[in-house]
Amino acid sequence: MIIDCHGHYTTVPAEMQTYREAQFADLANVSRGSVSEDITDDQLRESLEGAQIKLQRERGTDMTIFSPRASAMAHHLGSEKANVYWAEHWNNLIYRICQLYPDNFAPVGMLPQFPGVNPKNCIDEIERIVNELGFIGINLNPDPTGGWWTDPPLFDEWWYPVYEKMAELQIPAMVHVSQTTNKHFHFTGTHYLNADLTAFMQFLTSDVLDRFPTLKFIIPHGGGAAPYHWGRYRGLAQDNNWTPVAERIKDSVYFDTCVYHQPGIDLLFKVVPKDNILFGSEMVGAVRGIDPETGFNYDDTKRYVDALGLSDAERTQVYEGNVRTVFPRFKR
Amino acid sequence: MIIDCHGHYTTVPAEMQTYREAQFADLANVSRGSVSEDITDDQLRESLEGAQIKLQRERGTDMTIFSPRASAMAHHLGSEKANVYWAEHWNNLIYRICQLYPDNFAPVGMLPQFPGVNPKNCIDEIERIVNELGFIGINLNPDPTGGWWTDPPLFDEWWYPVYEKMAELQIPAMVHVSQTTNKHFHFTGTHYLNADLTAFMQFLTSDVLDRFPTLKFIIPHGGGAAPYHWGRYRGLAQDNNWTPVAERIKDSVYFDTCVYHQPGIDLLFKVVPKDNILFGSEMVGAVRGIDPETGFNYDDTKRYVDALGLSDAERTQVYEGNVRTVFPRFKR
Repeated sequence: MIIDCHGHYTTVPAEMQTYREAQFADLANVSRGSVSEDITDDQLRESLEGAQIKLQRERGTDMTIFSPRASAMAHHLGSEKANVYWAEHWNNLIYRICQLYPDNFAPVGMLPQFPGVNPKNCIDEIERIVNELGFIGINLNPDPTGGWWTDPPLFDEWWYPVYEKMAELQIPAMVHVSQTTNKHFHFTGTHYLNADLTAFMQFLTSDVLDRFPTLKFIIPHGGGAAPYHWGRYRGLAQDNNWTPVAERIKDSVYFDTCVYHQPGIDLLFKVVPKDNILFGSEMVGAVRGIDPETGFNYDDTKRYVDALGLSDAERTQVYEGNVRTVFPRFKR
Repeated sequence: MIIDCHGHYTTVPAEMQTYREAQFADLANVSRGSVSEDITDDQLRESLEGAQIKLQRERGTDMTIFSPRASAMAHHLGSEKANVYWAEHWNNLIYRICQLYPDNFAPVGMLPQFPGVNPKNCIDEIERIVNELGFIGINLNPDPTGGWWTDPPLFDEWWYPVYEKMAELQIPAMVHVSQTTNKHFHFTGTHYLNADLTAFMQFLTSDVLDRFPTLKFIIPHGGGAAPYHWGRYRGLAQDNNWTPVAERIKDSVYFDTCVYHQPGIDLLFKVVPKDNILFGSEMVGAVRGIDPETGFNYDDTKRYVDALGLSDAERTQVYEGNVRTVFPRFKR
């Protein structure tokens, strides 16, 4: 089975955006509404059949770990209450999709984060989606401020309630930011990648993985800049007497393969232990065009992985085995 | 001639730090003082002979483009006036070093930036160091706030006075941040690299290089995450109808080779045009240890470049020719 660990519902019906804008228009009086119930099964099918499902078939992948659109999370907008409803609607859509297409998608949820609000406000939604809806993981936004980085870092005890719940429920988190209102940072070009490296270094320089040894975090987009600068990080760890990088990430930190050219994937597999790599494409995602140098989509990352010449055992590990390790609730 | 485009005076005598702390202790009454005059030639020689100069000899490099210690710039500390004195002292030390060792070092200056202060306050110092002291370039801090990113981005007209002066004087800028007070970001592990990608994307997504077509910017640390994600950036440019990446950076944006392992250097040279790569090591810098996998220093980047099997013409280009193109005032 070939499992793509990183897919977002980027083709959601427009009703969701309309709902969100109605929230913004009257934040003092948000009510739950029924947008996720009002969207029909046919709409869901239509939004997926010509996109993610078609591309799964064309590219030869079987299953996508599927979560709400990352840029739509926009935790820096709305309000604490508005974002509770927003997360609930998004997660309900993901649930319905996974019920409609149990052979194509497995559900991962977004959290009702909001700047300055302790993330223990996310516990109810985590329990709901895991215990009631069968979700197998969450996306955790390390910067709910949208590019201002003024909430506490991932090693701060601020996050411990979420980590404790993750440990209890045996679910991993993909560390994934959303949009940004800071003009310095383009969202998919800068903020996403900078957040990846930021998380990686927070794990390297802190004791959070010692305090929560069973937790598993996925750093998307091939680990941001980390593999390209692997020597820098090995050297920094050595100079500063931190736990060596390979040892630090073992059983705890994983990178996906959302790197959109062959030389990048080659590098990733050359330096990062294969135990720590999960196949992913973020399809349909940030980059949708066809690379004129190859004739195939930039984000058709399976082609790059296939071209590595991995052994059968290694292929199985990266395409399936590691995903099962990271997502123990994935049972298919 | 083998020219290292990226060296900082990291081994400066302790008097400089004492001076800086005295500034902090009484910011309302800073006076210029004479710290850079008080440090003797013997102290300067002693600080360099056993470090940068010894390593130049051991590693077979001839010349280092030399600038103040990046982490010491700390534009987010001090005050506008304190930082004017601070930059002046640092630049005077760099000047004296280049007078003492004209065959080893060529001078690049730091600027007296301060958060919220229009960078036109840097013009006097730029004119002084270039016209009076023979400096050949500057380091420009794209985030003088120290990790909070609240000043305007590089494409904002806020920066135009500096760009106009750079164009007039024919000097390039290395885009290089300093320390950070934001706990999210480790300075040499996160903030430096994130700033590199941030600058790269700001050039890609704006018209600033069209407005200032003769300007040349060096993005250090191998371009941050950009080469590892080259397909992502080519794809984003294509999807968004931006100028294609290779065309956008041509004659304008350059990456150094401060990538501390062979696979990273291999990737850099595979995807980035050789016209846009300058040899650099940031020695003595962020990573000082010996890589047990190779037996050599992580930051001995010349070994990685030598191992690429470049043609003689390509070697000359990366080790010397491109530096001369980027630094037209370098005449040795």
